Amino acid sequence: MQGQSQQQAYDRGITIFSPDGRLYQVEYAREAVKRGTASVGVRTPDGVVLAANRQISSPLMERSSVEKIHKADDHVGVASAGHVADARQLIDLARRRAQGEQLRYGQDIGVETLTRSITDHIQEYTQTGGARPFGVALLVGGVEDGQPRLFETDPSGTDYEWQAAAVGGDRDVIQGYLEEEYREDLDIDAGIELAISALNEPEEESVAAEAVDVATITTEDESFSTVDDERLESIVAEIDTEESDE
Amino acid sequence: MQGQSQQQAYDRGITIFSPDGRLYQVEYAREAVKRGTASVGVRTPDGVVLAANRQISSPLMERSSVEKIHKADDHVGVASAGHVADARQLIDLARRRAQGEQLRYGQDIGVETLTRSITDHIQEYTQTGGARPFGVALLVGGVEDGQPRLFETDPSGTDYEWQAAAVGGDRDVIQGYLEEEYREDLDIDAGIELAISALNEPEEESVAAEAVDVATITTEDESFSTVDDERLESIVAEIDTEESDE
Amino acid sequence: MQGQSQQQAYDRGITIFSPDGRLYQVEYAREAVKRGTASVGVRTPDGVVLAANRQISSPLMERSSVEKIHKADDHVGVASAGHVADARQLIDLARRRAQGEQLRYGQDIGVETLTRSITDHIQEYTQTGGARPFGVALLVGGVEDGQPRLFETDPSGTDYEWQAAAVGGDRDVIQGYLEEEYREDLDIDAGIELAISALNEPEEESVAAEAVDVATITTEDESFSTVDDERLESIVAEIDTEESDE
Amino acid sequence: MQGQSQQQAYDRGITIFSPDGRLYQVEYAREAVKRGTASVGVRTPDGVVLAANRQISSPLMERSSVEKIHKADDHVGVASAGHVADARQLIDLARRRAQGEQLRYGQDIGVETLTRSITDHIQEYTQTGGARPFGVALLVGGVEDGQPRLFETDPSGTDYEWQAAAVGGDRDVIQGYLEEEYREDLDIDAGIELAISALNEPEEESVAAEAVDVATITTEDESFSTVDDERLESIVAEIDTEESDE
Amino acid sequence: MQGQSQQQAYDRGITIFSPDGRLYQVEYAREAVKRGTASVGVRTPDGVVLAANRQISSPLMERSSVEKIHKADDHVGVASAGHVADARQLIDLARRRAQGEQLRYGQDIGVETLTRSITDHIQEYTQTGGARPFGVALLVGGVEDGQPRLFETDPSGTDYEWQAAAVGGDRDVIQGYLEEEYREDLDIDAGIELAISALNEPEEESVAAEAVDVATITTEDESFSTVDDERLESIVAEIDTEESDE
Amino acid sequence: MQGQSQQQAYDRGITIFSPDGRLYQVEYAREAVKRGTASVGVRTPDGVVLAANRQISSPLMERSSVEKIHKADDHVGVASAGHVADARQLIDLARRRAQGEQLRYGQDIGVETLTRSITDHIQEYTQTGGARPFGVALLVGGVEDGQPRLFETDPSGTDYEWQAAAVGGDRDVIQGYLEEEYREDLDIDAGIELAISALNEPEEESVAAEAVDVATITTEDESFSTVDDERLESIVAEIDTEESDE
Amino acid sequence: MQGQSQQQAYDRGITIFSPDGRLYQVEYAREAVKRGTASVGVRTPDGVVLAANRQISSPLMERSSVEKIHKADDHVGVASAGHVADARQLIDLARRRAQGEQLRYGQDIGVETLTRSITDHIQEYTQTGGARPFGVALLVGGVEDGQPRLFETDPSGTDYEWQAAAVGGDRDVIQGYLEEEYREDLDIDAGIELAISALNEPEEESVAAEAVDVATITTEDESFSTVDDERLESIVAEIDTEESDE
Repeated sequence: MQGQSQQQAYDRGITIFSPDGRLYQVEYAREAVKRGTASVGVRTPDGVVLAANRQISSPLMERSSVEKIHKADDHVGVASAGHVADARQLIDLARRRAQGEQLRYGQDIGVETLTRSITDHIQEYTQTGGARPFGVALLVGGVEDGQPRLFETDPSGTDYEWQAAAVGGDRDVIQGYLEEEYREDLDIDAGIELAISALNEPEEESVAAEAVDVATITTEDESFSTVDDERLESIVAEIDTEESDE
Repeated sequence: MQGQSQQQAYDRGITIFSPDGRLYQVEYAREAVKRGTASVGVRTPDGVVLAANRQISSPLMERSSVEKIHKADDHVGVASAGHVADARQLIDLARRRAQGEQLRYGQDIGVETLTRSITDHIQEYTQTGGARPFGVALLVGGVEDGQPRLFETDPSGTDYEWQAAAVGGDRDVIQGYLEEEYREDLDIDAGIELAISALNEPEEESVAAEAVDVATITTEDESFSTVDDERLESIVAEIDTEESDE
Repeated sequence: MQGQSQQQAYDRGITIFSPDGRLYQVEYAREAVKRGTASVGVRTPDGVVLAANRQISSPLMERSSVEKIHKADDHVGVASAGHVADARQLIDLARRRAQGEQLRYGQDIGVETLTRSITDHIQEYTQTGGARPFGVALLVGGVEDGQPRLFETDPSGTDYEWQAAAVGGDRDVIQGYLEEEYREDLDIDAGIELAISALNEPEEESVAAEAVDVATITTEDESFSTVDDERLESIVAEIDTEESDE
Repeated sequence: MQGQSQQQAYDRGITIFSPDGRLYQVEYAREAVKRGTASVGVRTPDGVVLAANRQISSPLMERSSVEKIHKADDHVGVASAGHVADARQLIDLARRRAQGEQLRYGQDIGVETLTRSITDHIQEYTQTGGARPFGVALLVGGVEDGQPRLFETDPSGTDYEWQAAAVGGDRDVIQGYLEEEYREDLDIDAGIELAISALNEPEEESVAAEAVDVATITTEDESFSTVDDERLESIVAEIDTEESDE
Repeated sequence: MQGQSQQQAYDRGITIFSPDGRLYQVEYAREAVKRGTASVGVRTPDGVVLAANRQISSPLMERSSVEKIHKADDHVGVASAGHVADARQLIDLARRRAQGEQLRYGQDIGVETLTRSITDHIQEYTQTGGARPFGVALLVGGVEDGQPRLFETDPSGTDYEWQAAAVGGDRDVIQGYLEEEYREDLDIDAGIELAISALNEPEEESVAAEAVDVATITTEDESFSTVDDERLESIVAEIDTEESDE
Repeated sequence: MQGQSQQQAYDRGITIFSPDGRLYQVEYAREAVKRGTASVGVRTPDGVVLAANRQISSPLMERSSVEKIHKADDHVGVASAGHVADARQLIDLARRRAQGEQLRYGQDIGVETLTRSITDHIQEYTQTGGARPFGVALLVGGVEDGQPRLFETDPSGTDYEWQAAAVGGDRDVIQGYLEEEYREDLDIDAGIELAISALNEPEEESVAAEAVDVATITTEDESFSTVDDERLESIVAEIDTEESDE
Repeated sequence: MQGQSQQQAYDRGITIFSPDGRLYQVEYAREAVKRGTASVGVRTPDGVVLAANRQISSPLMERSSVEKIHKADDHVGVASAGHVADARQLIDLARRRAQGEQLRYGQDIGVETLTRSITDHIQEYTQTGGARPFGVALLVGGVEDGQPRLFETDPSGTDYEWQAAAVGGDRDVIQGYLEEEYREDLDIDAGIELAISALNEPEEESVAAEAVDVATITTEDESFSTVDDERLESIVAEIDTEESDE
């Protein structure tokens, strides 16, 4: 194992490997992701659920302005964790690619293809000098050929496909919860419930409905829609009931 | 927690993350914002109020030349805090974008769209090498589709939407005051009063009318207009009365 | 022999040689390859077998998303070890070159030609400043003029042709096993068996079928095809039988 | 408060902020301004007066070659303090912009517009790498829409409008004098007298007429003209009389 | 003479001379050449012989993939020592130049002209920043105007013409052997024998035929051809006989 | 006052100011000027005299090849002190500008305009990174509108107009001599005598005619001409007589 | 005088001056020249003689490949000392310029003009960043307008014209010999004899004819021609006779 002063020598430029073959700047960008509040994605047979905690620093801040779930195209949504302004750049990139596909071929871009165009962009920023990596992880969810798909992008430019995944702060706790509770035959509402419960897991108290953003992309209408507060509240209420039942 | 010498290793280049995932140069740019005098924005149903302290270093300086509130388009105003020359660059950018929208589409640019074009520009300066971040925060207020909107941009390139917000020196004190006193049903004059009182909060003595710039963008005429001294003085007088009443 | 502090002086820029004529950054990129799970290639008279361990960090992760074997063209496959996002860049490059050949000349690109276009690209990143080397090794297998060919690319931009080769973690152990067990007259199934056994060699316990990706490019149909789980399981079962026989 | 060794870490690149949000290189450029001899501008209802000390290092040097007051356009003059060659670059820029306005629109460029084009240029040199800031402050005086205007540009790229202002060495003393003695209803000759007296203030002895450059841009003829020695001498004589009267 | 710490100050950038006028990076690139296995060239009246040791790290590696002798054009061959991927870049360059000559002028490029185009390219990489020197030495052999020619390129970009020369590891020993044994009237077979014996010189035991690559470019057919194993074996056998005779 | 170690921190990059507002690289370029032999310019009513010492390191060196006085155009001459190759670049620039003026407008370029185009070029090299300042000072003498003009350019990019001036080694001594002896009504021959005597001043013994270059640009013929040895010798002889008379 | 540690601070970048106004990298390039074997040029009324020692490191090296005298054009030859690959770049440049002159104007380029185009190129490499100076000195000899001319270029980009000059190792000794022995009325053979004797001067023993390259450019035929061995040997024999006579 290496000492600290040794490490310091290799972690300040993205264009160099450390003697043990690591890219420290990419690892530090992963720390930037952990500094953000968590986002969760759950894939069900009926569609994909994206959910995220929102951190409002003042009661005067508009709730919508800290939303961490965004529509990338009619049939694709993106949840993020980490450096907010970096996330916006990647989401804008995703939107432009999706629009380009519509313009050129008159069809929806595939969810995997879209994810790859994002991770290609992220990888470039880890290899070529003069810029830093993106300090953000995304969950890209959507419907492709009638099938729900859920991908994660990480700061190295790698993508993974998931049944259910968490990114951001307390990822390990939340992912553990998902691994225990996820079942393949969840319906959308159960998916939403699972997502909120998972986000709730690291906290001591239940999370309030207004502190969560939830969106779904269902196979039925293949379109991104946010879940309104009323529906969220009834689901959160149900969670509380269940928990007090336990 | 990290010691000081450790920190020093990561804060001199914008293109690198620290081991705990922070971008020190962006955080230092936030300090540049705190070195500036404060600006305040208040959203009321009838329009947006922007207010700012002005710091005149000599009685021979023209008051208008230290104004910190600028018209970006007929229906949008911008207040700033921090590095003055940086602010002017961003305001010029906002003006060009607004004019471009008029030229291309013959319509007013949306307040949110305009804010995003500013924060995209700011973000680039935090990721690509060869330049420093912008040392300025802006409050962008305007009317969009008949609705008043108020946004903040910060040096990381993030934007937030607010009911009422402060940027610059003593932000915490002023924002605290706004959180206590803000009500959603303020009329424009009450909004102006609130903005001036908030700016006034960190000072021991009342602020003089001539040390404040105030502008409004009302839903009625959808146009930026500065509040003249006479009106300001009567409002300031009212504030003094109220305070002595307390 | 040189001391450590001496070495440190030459290993942080790819554009310099050390006094003993080494390029440390390239050597560290080789360490990045060793940090990845292994891939194996086996050439038989009937075609090329590519096999790789996959590392799934969560049961909720889609198995396909950590596949390390990719189709580069109908008649060429690529297995990788090392930095995943780097590998994807090189595989995309390979696909574009193969498509270009089809478009320009209406014919399949040669496996050797394709490998060279990859290693040329890798070499550039070891000589010209402003970027880091690729932290990945590839096995490129395919059929060319009816003959099976198997190449390796390394982070210096060198390529080698092999009868059977391993890249990635535990390479030495796996290559040793291949050298002992490889015979020139293997049929495809025996090739698959050898590849899996080789990957299995460093582990104490037998590897499960679902933890291995296998693909073949046979001289018969000159096309890339992945080996399905059923066939893999029967082969793995056979290996277990053989081993317990020993 | 920070110690000196700490400061040294942040002041050598223009592209970085110090931890307390300062741009040291810009502050050092302000020191370059202070190393120069002073210039003064005085705005009167009848026009703008620009005055500057000139430093002649040898009696064989042509007096005109160390003039620090320059015509930028027929209706605009510029006085400078600081790095002489930097000043010339900015004055050349101002001339090109003024000529461009004449060529494109057939009209005089506004004094404020002209000043902004200079400060935009200065700001760029404080944010983008590969160059140093301009080590010069300018006083830009002229007539716009029949009104006299007087602006200052500083090395950060900020501009200020003044009734009367000083830049360069002993600025504080001279500005203090201007604040005490300036009256809004000065005629041009009284403005010249004030400007010369102000420049004279830091010196123990009266300044000789030949050591001062003075130019005016009056509202009457809207044109830049230098004040000849005869007129200067009579004004200087008057100052001496007044002073000995005191 | 200079101490080691002094040297360290000048050897990390190719764009600087040391105080005693040396280019250390070029000297270190020469060390990279010495790390490679040796190549030998022998010029006889009947043609040029190129021979090289090959280092096969595994019995499963294809012998052809570590060949160090390449055809640059019908009438020119190149043997290399040092960094393999660098060598390939230069050989590709040589091929493009030779093809260009054919396309433009319909004739064979001269061996000297071709060598110069390579060394010009090498020299650029020793003078202009942003890249490292090529860590390779080449032997370029061919027939020009009916005459056999043999050139060497070194990492500084210098070329030399030889009767017989060695590059790479143990160069001094091999060159010494060549100087002792070379005669101007060798026929091709004697040239091959000399080349193999020279490569053999630093080893204790005789080299096996399969560990040597040999190619010739004869004046008779002016074309590059590799010497097959049968012929090599008979020549190696003869060498052994001769040696045991001694 | 600052200590030496402090200074060292700011003097190695031309793009930074020191804390006291100085540009050390420009100051060091002035030292390069002082390392050169001196040049002198004298303006008389009948024309400009340029004179320079020449340093011939060997009797075999052609005297003309170390001339430091050059024709820039028919009506303009340039004398230099400092880095010889830098001077040639600036003189070439001057010639191109003068020729450009002839080509575009069919007229002689003004001496002041020509000087400014040189100093603009010099200034750029003091502000933009990636190059060093010019280590040379020039005396530009010529006739413009029938009037003799004499300018100096310094390494900061500043220009001065002179009646008589010296640049290079021992400048202070020579300039002092010029200040004592210069009279405005000198004829050309007296100007030459003054120039030679001034150059002679720092030496103990009289300077030989062949160690001095002298050229004149007279108002009569407005053309650059070098003064031949015969005339120089007679003038030098006269100087000696005068001196022995004293 | 400065100490060594002080010097070290200024000698590693070509773009900076040292505090005493020196360019260390240029001075180190001069050391690279001194590391090379010497070249000599002698101008006689009948033409220019260029002579150089050649250093052959092995009897198998072709003598012609270490020639240090090259034809730049029919009427111009160039001898070099220092970094061989750098010299070739400059000689190639000279050839391209000479050919360009022929193509554009159908005439021989002047020797001085040609030299200047070389020194301009050299100077650029001493002022602009990103490259090192040329480590070579050239002697450029030829006939221009019927007159023999002999120039030297040095690593700073300065050129000198000579009657007889030496560059490279032992320059001082050889130049001293030339200064003693040179006479203006030498015929070509005497010029060759002088050149060889001068090269011979630092050695204890006489130099062998085959260790010297000699070329002449005579006014009679205005063309570059190398002096053959037979003529050289007879001249060398004569030198030996003379020396033994002394």
